[in-house]
Amino acid sequence: MLTVGQIAQFINGKVIGNGDIRINGLTGPSLAGEGDLTFAMDEETYSTAEKSGAVAILTNIEVKDPSKTLLYVENIKEAVTILYNAQMEMAPPAKGEIHPRAVVSGSAVLGENVSIGANTVIGDNVRIGDFSKVFPNVTIYDNTIIGSKVIIHSGCVIGADGFGYIPKDGKIYKVPQLGRVVIKDNVEIGSNTSVDRGTFTDTVIGENTKIDNLCQISHNVKIGKNVFIAALSGIAGSAIVGDGTMMGGNVGIADHVRVGNNVKIGGKTGVHGHVKDNAIIFGYPFRESSEARKLHGIISLMLKRHRSFRKMLREMPE
Amino acid sequence: MLTVGQIAQFINGKVIGNGDIRINGLTGPSLAGEGDLTFAMDEETYSTAEKSGAVAILTNIEVKDPSKTLLYVENIKEAVTILYNAQMEMAPPAKGEIHPRAVVSGSAVLGENVSIGANTVIGDNVRIGDFSKVFPNVTIYDNTIIGSKVIIHSGCVIGADGFGYIPKDGKIYKVPQLGRVVIKDNVEIGSNTSVDRGTFTDTVIGENTKIDNLCQISHNVKIGKNVFIAALSGIAGSAIVGDGTMMGGNVGIADHVRVGNNVKIGGKTGVHGHVKDNAIIFGYPFRESSEARKLHGIISLMLKRHRSFRKMLREMPE
Amino acid sequence: MLTVGQIAQFINGKVIGNGDIRINGLTGPSLAGEGDLTFAMDEETYSTAEKSGAVAILTNIEVKDPSKTLLYVENIKEAVTILYNAQMEMAPPAKGEIHPRAVVSGSAVLGENVSIGANTVIGDNVRIGDFSKVFPNVTIYDNTIIGSKVIIHSGCVIGADGFGYIPKDGKIYKVPQLGRVVIKDNVEIGSNTSVDRGTFTDTVIGENTKIDNLCQISHNVKIGKNVFIAALSGIAGSAIVGDGTMMGGNVGIADHVRVGNNVKIGGKTGVHGHVKDNAIIFGYPFRESSEARKLHGIISLMLKRHRSFRKMLREMPE
Repeated sequence: MLTVGQIAQFINGKVIGNGDIRINGLTGPSLAGEGDLTFAMDEETYSTAEKSGAVAILTNIEVKDPSKTLLYVENIKEAVTILYNAQMEMAPPAKGEIHPRAVVSGSAVLGENVSIGANTVIGDNVRIGDFSKVFPNVTIYDNTIIGSKVIIHSGCVIGADGFGYIPKDGKIYKVPQLGRVVIKDNVEIGSNTSVDRGTFTDTVIGENTKIDNLCQISHNVKIGKNVFIAALSGIAGSAIVGDGTMMGGNVGIADHVRVGNNVKIGGKTGVHGHVKDNAIIFGYPFRESSEARKLHGIISLMLKRHRSFRKMLREMPE
Repeated sequence: MLTVGQIAQFINGKVIGNGDIRINGLTGPSLAGEGDLTFAMDEETYSTAEKSGAVAILTNIEVKDPSKTLLYVENIKEAVTILYNAQMEMAPPAKGEIHPRAVVSGSAVLGENVSIGANTVIGDNVRIGDFSKVFPNVTIYDNTIIGSKVIIHSGCVIGADGFGYIPKDGKIYKVPQLGRVVIKDNVEIGSNTSVDRGTFTDTVIGENTKIDNLCQISHNVKIGKNVFIAALSGIAGSAIVGDGTMMGGNVGIADHVRVGNNVKIGGKTGVHGHVKDNAIIFGYPFRESSEARKLHGIISLMLKRHRSFRKMLREMPE
Repeated sequence: MLTVGQIAQFINGKVIGNGDIRINGLTGPSLAGEGDLTFAMDEETYSTAEKSGAVAILTNIEVKDPSKTLLYVENIKEAVTILYNAQMEMAPPAKGEIHPRAVVSGSAVLGENVSIGANTVIGDNVRIGDFSKVFPNVTIYDNTIIGSKVIIHSGCVIGADGFGYIPKDGKIYKVPQLGRVVIKDNVEIGSNTSVDRGTFTDTVIGENTKIDNLCQISHNVKIGKNVFIAALSGIAGSAIVGDGTMMGGNVGIADHVRVGNNVKIGGKTGVHGHVKDNAIIFGYPFRESSEARKLHGIISLMLKRHRSFRKMLREMPE
């Protein structure tokens, strides 16, 4: 248990009041209990924080006559984030609790301190690394490999068959999906996301990569490290996404496309061709941002001059 | 139990045959059993209805020599809807059945007549109001607040962590998600939809709002009353959606955007900026409908005159 | 148990080594055990295959001094697919295993050899045909009809209420969803997909149709035979999709639209109007491919000549 003063040093904050108070942990203002440190970023949350059981309040606003010890910082979001991560480091959320209502195959191999939620189903030969946490109602198909400190939220389906068929001689053959899903350390996957296993090779999600809710990661996809993928995005079969790339919401990447490292992709972009390192792209069909802006300028101008422009077009021969 | 005649008065219909028959309830033609009122909106469903155990048929078509009592109305969909809602009012679908295979935290507080389906997981300190119904295989994370007469369909995940990270000094910090999800009365949420809990404040879904399947409601989003959101739509972090706004399918709303009241948003629209009350918008990037129509007209004309227009462009200096 | 030589005849391959070895079954290189036939399509997978317990390797690459019996073919993906399907035919994956943790209504009628995964919930009066397989954590609402040899992956919700409301006199009435979902033989549905039941009629998915992950099939939709629908696509209420039509990822089809037979729809296309048989369409708003290409050509040219073109527009009267 640290004192408010020790925490202030850690996040470069200023104590107003008694800095010797010991803190149980960091909690949101509406949930803070006796002995907690909570926080407030405006007057409304300050009022909630003040009424809570918390003994100290981390804040970025000026307060007159505070009733509790204050810990003043300039960037409240960053301060809370750093504290929270330090707290996680000291006491990871996965504490080795396998819910009695989880269904874990006898051949699955779980590392130390793995937590598995209620009604989650873990298939045969699945391996999960230390301190990983799988929330309730997740399904992990046979042979999936999951690293350490991975977080998988509820409703995810990891390792189901990819979408592959060969129509031949009037029949539809299902292409066997015999690869695996391999998820590296420190990956977080949001709720209701689907990651399909590989056809013949593996589907791979690199270290530290974060995937939001309701995303589709198709068979054989290889995603690099430190990639961010926002909600409702889909990456089609065998596509490759480089390290450090960031995707907005509802982005689509076509099959077999190679997206480079450190690419930034705007929300709703449709990526049907390869993309170089460091590119910034958006639109459907996608364009580099400079081209997309040019097009936007042209269209705005056509709309402003639409009477004259349409007249000109109408007078042209077909 | 009401008679066919009493029902006819309620929905302004006309009885053909015996109006004194008592009705068990309203059921679809393929499922109607002994004593039910069923309905038919074309000859095919009429034939099914006639063969069913139903004792009376609500219909908008003319029938010669009916074998059962008919209840004739002009707007069959509206009549069925009004009857169905009246029936629900008299006998709400949530009857207080907690399935023995539901996993409900001991600290959750359920109102009267709350129904919880099989394998649904309800976390700590969750509160659910009277007559709400949660279908099977739903996951509700800790501290979520749900009002009365709320319906949550299977596969939904309510209250999972929002998608927030701060990359700093070569490390990726997870922003703590310490707020809650607050769902007001009479909300209905379709299957496989994800609603993330707030970062520091709450994610709020207003009264009477209806959300379709596979939608993403991100952290800190505030949705007003009487809002309709069709399937596969996503609302990014901290966005605000006003009362009475209607969104088509696969709409995306960017983070921190404010969408006004009574806005109409066409399917697949990408909303990356604020939108005023009563606007009608569509497209990607979105435009007010009059501008979008203008642009559509210009493009049609360019396509019609594409030979001449391309010739003109080609002859211009670069 | 067949020999390598017999298998070679079946797929028109060439044996290098001992063709009399008997094979247990076909398995991926990273999972192959004693007695299995595995495969390799490049040097990396060949190395994995060689180290596995497999007794023979199906391959399309030239190998010097193989340590195991080789079965050489030109098209490895097709050969593996044909073998896998033949194996499935002989020993279907659904073996009649109802997981003890499945929740199956007493009034559900299951055919022979139906498999139901853990925590899957099957409602009242559901019918499922022979050799169908439902993976874990699926929810099938009451009255759903499922054919034979159907595969439903984890997280799917079949038969939930469609999204229908009538706002009237300041109140929002829920339109009753009294139809069913009817899924024909040999359909496969990917993980986390939602199929809503019909309002008054049924939602129908035709024979051999394959639906990818995270798709939305709305109430009253009728999908023909041999249709392919890629991930994150949505088909709105009462739309009709003809036989043999193929949809890319994240396609949206508006309500009440009729899409013909053998239509090809590019990824992210927004289909807001009827589409004729055999059309190839893409874009948002969608266009026939020839028109879409014309438009693409015009836009490229406008971007190349953007200086001159903008100058011309600017000099026009508003």
